[in-house]
Amino acid sequence: MKVVGTFAEVRAEQRGAAVGLVPTMGALHAGHRSLLDAARSSVAHVVASVFVNPLQFNEASDLERYPRPFEADLEVCREAGVDVVFHPSVEEMFPRPMRTTVSVAEVVDRMEGPSRPGHFDGVATVVAKLLAGVQPDRAFFGRKDAQQVAVIRTMTADLNFPVEIVPCPTVRDRDGLALSSRNVFLSDDERRRALGLSRGLLAAADAVGGGELDASRLEIIARAEMSDVDHLEYVELAAQADAARLIAIDRPAFLAVAGRVGRTRLIDNVAFDVMDGVVVPDRGIRRDVES
Amino acid sequence: MKVVGTFAEVRAEQRGAAVGLVPTMGALHAGHRSLLDAARSSVAHVVASVFVNPLQFNEASDLERYPRPFEADLEVCREAGVDVVFHPSVEEMFPRPMRTTVSVAEVVDRMEGPSRPGHFDGVATVVAKLLAGVQPDRAFFGRKDAQQVAVIRTMTADLNFPVEIVPCPTVRDRDGLALSSRNVFLSDDERRRALGLSRGLLAAADAVGGGELDASRLEIIARAEMSDVDHLEYVELAAQADAARLIAIDRPAFLAVAGRVGRTRLIDNVAFDVMDGVVVPDRGIRRDVES
Repeated sequence: MKVVGTFAEVRAEQRGAAVGLVPTMGALHAGHRSLLDAARSSVAHVVASVFVNPLQFNEASDLERYPRPFEADLEVCREAGVDVVFHPSVEEMFPRPMRTTVSVAEVVDRMEGPSRPGHFDGVATVVAKLLAGVQPDRAFFGRKDAQQVAVIRTMTADLNFPVEIVPCPTVRDRDGLALSSRNVFLSDDERRRALGLSRGLLAAADAVGGGELDASRLEIIARAEMSDVDHLEYVELAAQADAARLIAIDRPAFLAVAGRVGRTRLIDNVAFDVMDGVVVPDRGIRRDVES
Repeated sequence: MKVVGTFAEVRAEQRGAAVGLVPTMGALHAGHRSLLDAARSSVAHVVASVFVNPLQFNEASDLERYPRPFEADLEVCREAGVDVVFHPSVEEMFPRPMRTTVSVAEVVDRMEGPSRPGHFDGVATVVAKLLAGVQPDRAFFGRKDAQQVAVIRTMTADLNFPVEIVPCPTVRDRDGLALSSRNVFLSDDERRRALGLSRGLLAAADAVGGGELDASRLEIIARAEMSDVDHLEYVELAAQADAARLIAIDRPAFLAVAGRVGRTRLIDNVAFDVMDGVVVPDRGIRRDVES
């Protein structure tokens, strides 16, 4: 495994091989590990990028306290058989003030978009940089950030990046909490209260299994479990393709939630895929050991 | 020479070779031919794209009447030794309404930017599509569109496209008029009046040769020749790197002009390069035969 700091070095390592890119902000957990594993089993050459992207943070304090356990991240990459870890400096990524912005309309109009002004511009811009600079054949993203997947799929299709976007199931702790680098900020009590998020989503998934497809009723079922969340921002059913609001599951969809527990903002969702006309919930996968 | 309509076909032809891209909107003249020649002498595999980009037109009528002599364009490409002509349909370029925009701040704030709202977003977005989809090692642009070169250089650097942007000298007719696909719209009288644009710029270049570096005085010298232009929009000295307004030639610069003659809007400029501390005007090159 090589650790490199420039795009040119990344490309120099991969000539000829099919390349899989796993873009991360580090603080790697079992969710990231599942992305690395998916890449490893899919392409000859796996690149993991580790870069805390300042463009996608709304608050300086959030950027500041974002965890950066780089040595532990390297160990995760090594165990997963990563070929190249791309760990650019801020100077490599932004040698001068950025004047270029990649923005995606409509897909960002709801849910995370209004709550985090500029966030998706920051995501789309830095992912475009990674795709342009690394030129991967496939890129792997977690379904936990379902709206982000929609934004990135729209951006890559619109800009003709020759990359396959591969969304991977959310990984959950044994208690159901979706893994997130921000979970380390939760106290025991906050964590207990945060469990309402996944409990509500999984109750809605059960209802879908029982034939309920109506958005309003699914949102009510989910909300019923979330009373211990300090500030519930939204519970919404949206289309996987473009994050448009749906009144029923009549195409691939996801039921998404965002809320604050203490100072920590958490998001989660359950995806609903449509296979041969049947709606199949993707509840994510449980890992065996508690974080 | 192959003519292909999809990005996948373009890439399939070029595996392994160094690729030069010459993005055009067709209606190829000797200016485009000089770009094709520069590419041909520089890389193993030359791709010319021919696509009238609707995103960069401000007026539907201008888009509508833009010339599209495709058979003649093919002949120019064939003579120049182009390997692949990429002639995508509107459906290949825009299979669905574009939601993604690539925008460049600051560089577009003056000159062509305010005159043509959205124009540079359209240019930056379609060039990003071409660079992402074709993955060239070098891309060739005419210096006649000096601000466009600044926008594209900023965009490609900011987004880490691994491409070298190669600006090529403006090609002029024997009478000095900068070649443009729009020149065909000029009547004889309009053409005569349009010559004030290049005459003024070249007079300013002569003054620079004589040691004049002050922006105001160069603009006055240039304007003195342009009284027959119906509507002179601007005559401005700007930095090559970012199109920032300059009060003197203290770095690589260009003196740019835009004006209308009859219904036809024309632009032109003279570049001032700095070599070993000496300011060297690039007046463009004259071709031997009249258009």
